[in-house]
Amino acid sequence: MPWPETQAIRKDMPVSFRRKDLLGIADLTPEEIQLILDTAVSFKEILTREIKKVPTLRGKTVVTLFYEPSTRTRTSFEIAAKRLSADTVNLSISASSVVKGETLGDTADNLEAMRPDIIIIRHSASGAPHFLATRLKSSIVNAGDGLHEHPTQALLDLLTVREAKGRLDGLKIAIIGDIAHSRVARSDIQGFIKMGSQVTVCGPGPMLPPYLEALGTKVSRSLPEAVAGADVVMMLRLQLERQQQMYFSTLREYARFFGLSLAHLKLAREDALVMHPGPLNRGVEIAPEVADGPQSVILDQVTNGVAVRMAILYLLTGGEPSGTAH
Amino acid sequence: MPWPETQAIRKDMPVSFRRKDLLGIADLTPEEIQLILDTAVSFKEILTREIKKVPTLRGKTVVTLFYEPSTRTRTSFEIAAKRLSADTVNLSISASSVVKGETLGDTADNLEAMRPDIIIIRHSASGAPHFLATRLKSSIVNAGDGLHEHPTQALLDLLTVREAKGRLDGLKIAIIGDIAHSRVARSDIQGFIKMGSQVTVCGPGPMLPPYLEALGTKVSRSLPEAVAGADVVMMLRLQLERQQQMYFSTLREYARFFGLSLAHLKLAREDALVMHPGPLNRGVEIAPEVADGPQSVILDQVTNGVAVRMAILYLLTGGEPSGTAH
Amino acid sequence: MPWPETQAIRKDMPVSFRRKDLLGIADLTPEEIQLILDTAVSFKEILTREIKKVPTLRGKTVVTLFYEPSTRTRTSFEIAAKRLSADTVNLSISASSVVKGETLGDTADNLEAMRPDIIIIRHSASGAPHFLATRLKSSIVNAGDGLHEHPTQALLDLLTVREAKGRLDGLKIAIIGDIAHSRVARSDIQGFIKMGSQVTVCGPGPMLPPYLEALGTKVSRSLPEAVAGADVVMMLRLQLERQQQMYFSTLREYARFFGLSLAHLKLAREDALVMHPGPLNRGVEIAPEVADGPQSVILDQVTNGVAVRMAILYLLTGGEPSGTAH
Repeated sequence: MPWPETQAIRKDMPVSFRRKDLLGIADLTPEEIQLILDTAVSFKEILTREIKKVPTLRGKTVVTLFYEPSTRTRTSFEIAAKRLSADTVNLSISASSVVKGETLGDTADNLEAMRPDIIIIRHSASGAPHFLATRLKSSIVNAGDGLHEHPTQALLDLLTVREAKGRLDGLKIAIIGDIAHSRVARSDIQGFIKMGSQVTVCGPGPMLPPYLEALGTKVSRSLPEAVAGADVVMMLRLQLERQQQMYFSTLREYARFFGLSLAHLKLAREDALVMHPGPLNRGVEIAPEVADGPQSVILDQVTNGVAVRMAILYLLTGGEPSGTAH
Repeated sequence: MPWPETQAIRKDMPVSFRRKDLLGIADLTPEEIQLILDTAVSFKEILTREIKKVPTLRGKTVVTLFYEPSTRTRTSFEIAAKRLSADTVNLSISASSVVKGETLGDTADNLEAMRPDIIIIRHSASGAPHFLATRLKSSIVNAGDGLHEHPTQALLDLLTVREAKGRLDGLKIAIIGDIAHSRVARSDIQGFIKMGSQVTVCGPGPMLPPYLEALGTKVSRSLPEAVAGADVVMMLRLQLERQQQMYFSTLREYARFFGLSLAHLKLAREDALVMHPGPLNRGVEIAPEVADGPQSVILDQVTNGVAVRMAILYLLTGGEPSGTAH
Repeated sequence: MPWPETQAIRKDMPVSFRRKDLLGIADLTPEEIQLILDTAVSFKEILTREIKKVPTLRGKTVVTLFYEPSTRTRTSFEIAAKRLSADTVNLSISASSVVKGETLGDTADNLEAMRPDIIIIRHSASGAPHFLATRLKSSIVNAGDGLHEHPTQALLDLLTVREAKGRLDGLKIAIIGDIAHSRVARSDIQGFIKMGSQVTVCGPGPMLPPYLEALGTKVSRSLPEAVAGADVVMMLRLQLERQQQMYFSTLREYARFFGLSLAHLKLAREDALVMHPGPLNRGVEIAPEVADGPQSVILDQVTNGVAVRMAILYLLTGGEPSGTAH
């Protein structure tokens, strides 16, 4: 028994995650979210060891299928899979090769025919992972689809807040930035509300989509108002290329009204957390002294990203009846 | 003995594959082809298990050296190697870096100096794998060289037909499309003829090279004629960029005369197989309802691709005297 | 005890390498260089085995972070890591994504948050690895930084000379080419001088930087003079794109005055070694008959590159107190 800790994980925790896929926070019950976070905590302990690896997914094949460039998320999933002893295969499909190439359905069917266990997909089209999930027997993990969802980001955010605050209910969460074009925001909003917290979103008018109230959030156009009394201030990355779409006049103006400064942060609770999904535009949506300050948990988010992704890969495969042989 | 099935493979099967390299179907005897297919069948069984991995190639290094972009074939080889527990290293060398870079011989010598066991090469120059094979001690696998050969594609096609038909002799095989520019066609023609079947090729005149009769095929310019009574109808991918070379006037015209419709397929035997090496141009060389129909074995081809490539990697290394230590 | 040889390495050799990082030859003592070379010799023996793999770094994560394109060096490190059973993750960051992306510090912090053990970095900015080394707890290996250092190249060169000559002291080393723009030259000069040899550098005037005498080398503008009586003639790759900067008028002229011909080589000692870091510009800085001649150890350099990199990865992790569990 070279890695007895793995057995410990299974014994302590009734595997009640019965899903084939992880497509979005919208699908998950609070109990399922709780289970994922608890599993991630177990895996996080492994990351502190000398040998940061367990044989849980030995012999499983995990494919990353990325239609949008990403080193950060792909690397996090790849490290998570390797620490579970899975074999990983990376497929980066550039926009150009899609144009001359085959349909997503054909690509998916082909991949499935090679018998992978899990396909992790990032795609510019909202719903692409759901399309794959109904079509394929492989487990599908949504690593970001269009403007729709990025569920593992929300789960790592929830884990980070739960670690720091000890709970996920009754908190005031402020999410600031381009909400309309952020799949991170959509997943986070639903995650925090499901777990019993209150979410206020804030950004320039054109960056606030009409469906926000329906999701159950408060909406504010004033950063000081949104941040006031918050337990968590989550800043979104500004997609700099959107400036040409005239959503705001200059970066400087954006930074002044919707960037988080130390002065703004003082309006939040004294123990408020500062979060950001990365990569940072320092001096635009977040002041360097805030990003690097004592309230920032931005790097904890990254560490928790690996743990949450290990938990997801584990639960999606371990829930199978034959999983007992792991 | 964690994976006793591996021993079973060795015991049941006298390893009589004495080649260092797999360069083309042209080199292989029918007995060697039979051995490869039989070995692939053994490995295919592994792909149905919960743990789809055997330690056969543990400690071996398999390098993919691709001078032409390919996700599909590279992924199939990479998954095959990983399921045999080999370490894989991917080298994609873009056309631009070749221009300013070193000669193929120097690249090969350098790679060899790092002591890989198998080098899988795809190159736009016909004969590039043969050049490496004579130069290097490493085993060389041809993953497609210019317009010359693509032997693992032909082997997976043979396996797919043998599985469905129970034999490879006495069958009527129709291969339709741009024969002149297809290394798949060249390998398939030789493979099916060696195994005792009859091959008819068909395409627009400029797509039919002069050497076809010498290979032993029948040649037809009429798809209905070629398909009539066939046991297997293999459609080739149309390289869309060739349209500019005036081989045909429009895609629509090509589809009408050389695309496989349901009506055309009815001319073949009732139990005829529909095959395609992928990726598909739906609505061009193959109608969607044919590609997705009950006679299509296109996805079986993909699954068999992994099994055949496992067999090749196994035979090229297991045939060595020291292979008994595996 | 499946790999008893690994234990042998540890027993024979007091691990006295106490560094967290390998940043440059400038930092190393002759004793440390000796230890690295001795360790590499042990690992080189592994490369001759049927199973070229030891479990030394099982469970360790090695990340390659390359800001400049390189297949050769990246592949050598990747193979070295895999033969030690480490998990490898490759990050290639193109110049374009740096422009719109985050700072090097933020990228490094993010990577560190995923808990890698070793980060191997190549960067166009001199000092980038040193910046990471002070910032991160992970071990940093410099795989080439700007015009500054490329220490693993120098170590493999030292190993190659020591193997062939039996010693590193009292030798005459000639290094020929664009010294000013060569991090290889900077690392080699310091390495050979530290180990007790004499270095003469030679190249066109604009390619000879002013600091050379301060490093302790002789400087010559005449290839015949520099090569006369040399034990080792090391040719540098000419960066062809520099021709536009008017350092020399034509490739032909460069080849005539600073390319190594057979006639030139006869001026060196009869048993002189010919070396080159690759890739070769045949007919420019080196004549093909010299590159392929009996005095060339160019491919030994490549083989030793894997062994030296295995040694570095081993010493950087094995030196830790907990390393005894390996």
